[in-house]
Amino acid sequence: MNVMEESLQLHEQWKGKIEVVSRTKINNARDLTLAYTPGVAQPCLEIEKNPDLSYVYTRRANLVAVITDGSAVLGLGNIGPEAGMPVMEGKCALFKEFADVDAFPLCVRSNDVDEIVNTVAMIAGSFGGINLEDIAAPRCFEIEAKLKERVDIPVFHDDQHGTAIVVGAAMLNACKLTGRDIGSLKVVMSGAGAAGCAIAKFLMSLGVKDIIMLNSKGIICEGDDIKNPAQAEMAKITNREHIRGGLADAMKGADVFVGVSKPDLVTADMVKSMNPDPFIFAMSNPVPEIMPDVAKAAGAYIVGTGRSDFPNQINNVVAFPGIFKGALAVRASDINDEMKLAAAYAIASCVPDDKLCPEFVLPDAFDRAVPVAVAEAVGKAARESGVARI
Amino acid sequence: MNVMEESLQLHEQWKGKIEVVSRTKINNARDLTLAYTPGVAQPCLEIEKNPDLSYVYTRRANLVAVITDGSAVLGLGNIGPEAGMPVMEGKCALFKEFADVDAFPLCVRSNDVDEIVNTVAMIAGSFGGINLEDIAAPRCFEIEAKLKERVDIPVFHDDQHGTAIVVGAAMLNACKLTGRDIGSLKVVMSGAGAAGCAIAKFLMSLGVKDIIMLNSKGIICEGDDIKNPAQAEMAKITNREHIRGGLADAMKGADVFVGVSKPDLVTADMVKSMNPDPFIFAMSNPVPEIMPDVAKAAGAYIVGTGRSDFPNQINNVVAFPGIFKGALAVRASDINDEMKLAAAYAIASCVPDDKLCPEFVLPDAFDRAVPVAVAEAVGKAARESGVARI
Repeated sequence: MNVMEESLQLHEQWKGKIEVVSRTKINNARDLTLAYTPGVAQPCLEIEKNPDLSYVYTRRANLVAVITDGSAVLGLGNIGPEAGMPVMEGKCALFKEFADVDAFPLCVRSNDVDEIVNTVAMIAGSFGGINLEDIAAPRCFEIEAKLKERVDIPVFHDDQHGTAIVVGAAMLNACKLTGRDIGSLKVVMSGAGAAGCAIAKFLMSLGVKDIIMLNSKGIICEGDDIKNPAQAEMAKITNREHIRGGLADAMKGADVFVGVSKPDLVTADMVKSMNPDPFIFAMSNPVPEIMPDVAKAAGAYIVGTGRSDFPNQINNVVAFPGIFKGALAVRASDINDEMKLAAAYAIASCVPDDKLCPEFVLPDAFDRAVPVAVAEAVGKAARESGVARI
Repeated sequence: MNVMEESLQLHEQWKGKIEVVSRTKINNARDLTLAYTPGVAQPCLEIEKNPDLSYVYTRRANLVAVITDGSAVLGLGNIGPEAGMPVMEGKCALFKEFADVDAFPLCVRSNDVDEIVNTVAMIAGSFGGINLEDIAAPRCFEIEAKLKERVDIPVFHDDQHGTAIVVGAAMLNACKLTGRDIGSLKVVMSGAGAAGCAIAKFLMSLGVKDIIMLNSKGIICEGDDIKNPAQAEMAKITNREHIRGGLADAMKGADVFVGVSKPDLVTADMVKSMNPDPFIFAMSNPVPEIMPDVAKAAGAYIVGTGRSDFPNQINNVVAFPGIFKGALAVRASDINDEMKLAAAYAIASCVPDDKLCPEFVLPDAFDRAVPVAVAEAVGKAARESGVARI
């Protein structure tokens, strides 16, 4: 039985990967009196006087909504809200397992920006944070931006920022290992969807100055007719030398390849055309833009992929559980750039100096110290940037 | 320390009365592969082909949303969405403790019918059923009706139907005990809000023919100027003799008093003016319309209240967990009248014949056989009435 068949069978046995349990036993009339009526009236009245006390008397302080419209689930495309739910439940299970954060999956039966924003804004008072997941670009940008305006709790589109933070952490450690200055790197970014744009922007906030982005048609260049507003925006801040062409053109003389695009796009010759000892982060899944052995043979110094069976797995699970844990711990009103940067540095720091090597620039996904370190750093950054509320 | 203070302190310690846990351990790369990517793609694809399989591969089949707008919480009025959450969490804890049904609380930041309906309809694909809670009348009627049109899962406003079903069960057993025919009873219904109207209608569906309803101004009578549409509707089917006046007028010659109104409305003299051996269900909480000892001294044969410290507690907890359990078990598309009637008969049947007496016309709230019996009866009624989908 292959992984797909086994997973299907397990999903049928599990009958859901999450469960809502009671934190208080209700075995007799006295229990009922205290957990329910009439006693429950007292916390209700306290919250009525001060809605912030909802963080004290309900689960909200530890509770994240994982929201999708089912429009960009894994690499499967727009499979519909209900079909996205196995992924959302999995995400919620990871939140709990890795950071003891309660997360609840909700799929929204609409692909309309405002309908999705309204729905989430309406129920925001039930949660301490909103994790957007697997929503197609470019709509995901607008949904996140509008929701951040509408609600007083952190909103975080993990496909964008989680991925960006982990790639950023890998880049920090790659630079540390090789003694390179992040500001001197020439980066090729293949894929200009939600994740690609977010990675490019995040790398710039980490100090990268020179990025060439490619969409399915080739290099994105200012002055060209670019329909996608997110890509048009990227055209203004990337590719300052106005290079035109395809991937092979972009790769010549580059130091880093980052891919969130398609299998097998990158050839050995392209790697050979890069500057010496390049970093290759090939995250197309399950088949990367170039296989690690091919990249290494062509001269790549560090190779990372999305897969757990190769070194340097670029896996959001080292980011999102700790990020939300940290944001919730200080009741942050936002997950801002400072917190995202702090998360990337914290993830990078989880690889000890004496273990840092080309095969180990990112911590293991199951290193339980990672979410702890990330949460602490994110909470601190929230305080220092003024978005912490406790 | 009184109950209110103790409850507040406990709520602070509990940090929420519900929690979302993972049903699958994720301790290594293989676990991740099966519960998350890439394995999770398989159940996603199966659900894409047939959305009904969301009941097989996600938690949906056992999951109820408990929804409020915080507008009629307990007897506290419109205290706001966040302030209603301690009650919603308590309800969810009861669902789990009494019937192993997962329930998740959501408060909606709106008092507008269409905004609430849209919000719930948008997320309905995440759940197997919708329990509406503590939403003010008359809006709650419209919300329930519109939602039933919009979504393909059961929608049940517990304040209306749960209460009606339990009063109905008490009435069935009271008739059984006294040998009276339910169709011959003259019933006075004090309180014409959501619960009052639902109780009156439900008693009629159980066979009661003669009901006089009262709102805060007195007896509701057809032909009077009645602003409230729900009460105007009730005026057409109750009080067929067109009696006008107050509670004292209504009580003369009545067999049953049912109150969901205000403390101390009913005097001993009013009870004395009723037919011999009347039934009194005085559910104003925590102070009933008449105290049981006063009612008994004035000639009442059976007295029930909402309180756990008197006999015959009329407590929804004997109804809603089993009702949803039964509806979910057969994947019902609705909780219809047949299912509600079946629930009332099932609850009544949980008082054994040899124990049936004036102090014991309703089963104990903690009798764990009740939700089992209710679920079975409700599932059977769903099948027989054609709303079961498996």
